[in-house]
Amino acid sequence: MKLLRVGTAGTERPALLDAEGTLRDLSGVVPDIDGPLLADDGALGRIRDAADAGTLPALDAVGLRVGPPLARIGKIVCIGLNYHDHARETGAEPPAEPVIFFKAADTVVGPHDTVLIPRRSVKTDWEVELAVVIGRTARYVESAEAALGHVAGYAVAHDVSEREFQIERGGTWDKGKNCETFNPLGPWLVTADEVPDPQNLGLRLWVNGELKQDGTTAEQIFPVGEVVRYVSQFMTLYPGDVINTGTPAGVALGEPEPKPFLRAGDVVELEIEGLGRQRQEFKNA
Amino acid sequence: MKLLRVGTAGTERPALLDAEGTLRDLSGVVPDIDGPLLADDGALGRIRDAADAGTLPALDAVGLRVGPPLARIGKIVCIGLNYHDHARETGAEPPAEPVIFFKAADTVVGPHDTVLIPRRSVKTDWEVELAVVIGRTARYVESAEAALGHVAGYAVAHDVSEREFQIERGGTWDKGKNCETFNPLGPWLVTADEVPDPQNLGLRLWVNGELKQDGTTAEQIFPVGEVVRYVSQFMTLYPGDVINTGTPAGVALGEPEPKPFLRAGDVVELEIEGLGRQRQEFKNA
Repeated sequence: MKLLRVGTAGTERPALLDAEGTLRDLSGVVPDIDGPLLADDGALGRIRDAADAGTLPALDAVGLRVGPPLARIGKIVCIGLNYHDHARETGAEPPAEPVIFFKAADTVVGPHDTVLIPRRSVKTDWEVELAVVIGRTARYVESAEAALGHVAGYAVAHDVSEREFQIERGGTWDKGKNCETFNPLGPWLVTADEVPDPQNLGLRLWVNGELKQDGTTAEQIFPVGEVVRYVSQFMTLYPGDVINTGTPAGVALGEPEPKPFLRAGDVVELEIEGLGRQRQEFKNA
Repeated sequence: MKLLRVGTAGTERPALLDAEGTLRDLSGVVPDIDGPLLADDGALGRIRDAADAGTLPALDAVGLRVGPPLARIGKIVCIGLNYHDHARETGAEPPAEPVIFFKAADTVVGPHDTVLIPRRSVKTDWEVELAVVIGRTARYVESAEAALGHVAGYAVAHDVSEREFQIERGGTWDKGKNCETFNPLGPWLVTADEVPDPQNLGLRLWVNGELKQDGTTAEQIFPVGEVVRYVSQFMTLYPGDVINTGTPAGVALGEPEPKPFLRAGDVVELEIEGLGRQRQEFKNA
């Protein structure tokens, strides 16, 4: 299923994009798309039944804002340098074990919302990423295979990054990863049953129409199951938590000088095979 | 005012510790202690009026669990190496600007709850810290003085840390800071009006009765107002966000080998002047 949330920011309603591409209102079936819903097989079953029965009212998609497909996100765990080609372009050795950093849930916006370039930023960069949404609590999970059973679904995430804040201002990467609006998410949360192989998804990102990233999750150093297993050894993952699993090659940081960091007016579009497409205009904060 | 939350985990009710040391039930006045409450001068005024009028029912404190004094915490921003004496003991240069890392809100437990030593941990360490609770949205705040106006109050935080995970496993410090139960908070959220000088608070921590940390916030490299101002240049702070402002000298990491990292059965007690006292027993996860 393709679950989403539509409406003005803060008052989104749950919706379903059905097999025919029609947007259906879910607000009569479930209150919202969030951790408790994803942990509740019964509620997911009710959505499925209503979709199959054809009883869900259609929504008029014209002019309707798409919000992030998940409400009340707990934490966003991010995996750094998780693609062979991206590690190479940044001059880093492939890490021996996953690199973890954090984004705060309050950085999440809808897939087509404006992204703000922070004040005094000169190195705002793009990163298309596969986001993994947790559906069952994961704590010391024993195998990568078992870990996949804790995944409710997948979405497109844009891990917007300020490289000077991230790398040149001391301390951890978190300083350049948590600026306001820095995590567009969506349009859809695609349930795991519809993503048979998360290690075979094409990811692409364009800046002002020019293709910049063109990768595949087959290049991930640590695949999704291993990432969930590994993270669960250090922290407990709860339903409604998100893992951004890293970006392939093609970011501004990896280009020769002068690196083409983002400026107000730039438009970034990104997509992952089967998970939909985002488009953001960048403006100054 | 000393605000707190009492009851079993997940169903705490709001309470007030009054000037006479009597625990008073606030659940007839406000629904909970959280970001929206702290942002609402009217609600805080209602608590104050009810306390002054002497109409709040007393609670029987015997056997009552104290929970974290803040519900629905947004993010926990942590400042690393923020005490001159602690930077020295870890062999680090005092940072030129604040070091930022994150703890997830789901690591927060009550001040007397059990803390779990992670599986395969051999370097679990203690850190007493002054926690700053945000009451008004802080975004590009211009001065340290103005930044203090965004602070709703203060609390004791225990920034429990696993040093191998933090330092020796690659990536950022977040890997050793986000284990389950790693952020005891409370007992009280003391409103800012009752903490006239946050840079003049004694902090102490004992392990099994032995005094290990005995510092003062006067040793902070970046004082509270400057920390809030600085952080607000990189991310927006919202009501209900927390900043752990760093720890003074005296952690296990700073001791000679063999360093006395925590083991199951150890008891840690910690206090900050005017903000109350915590006590945790450590057990294996």
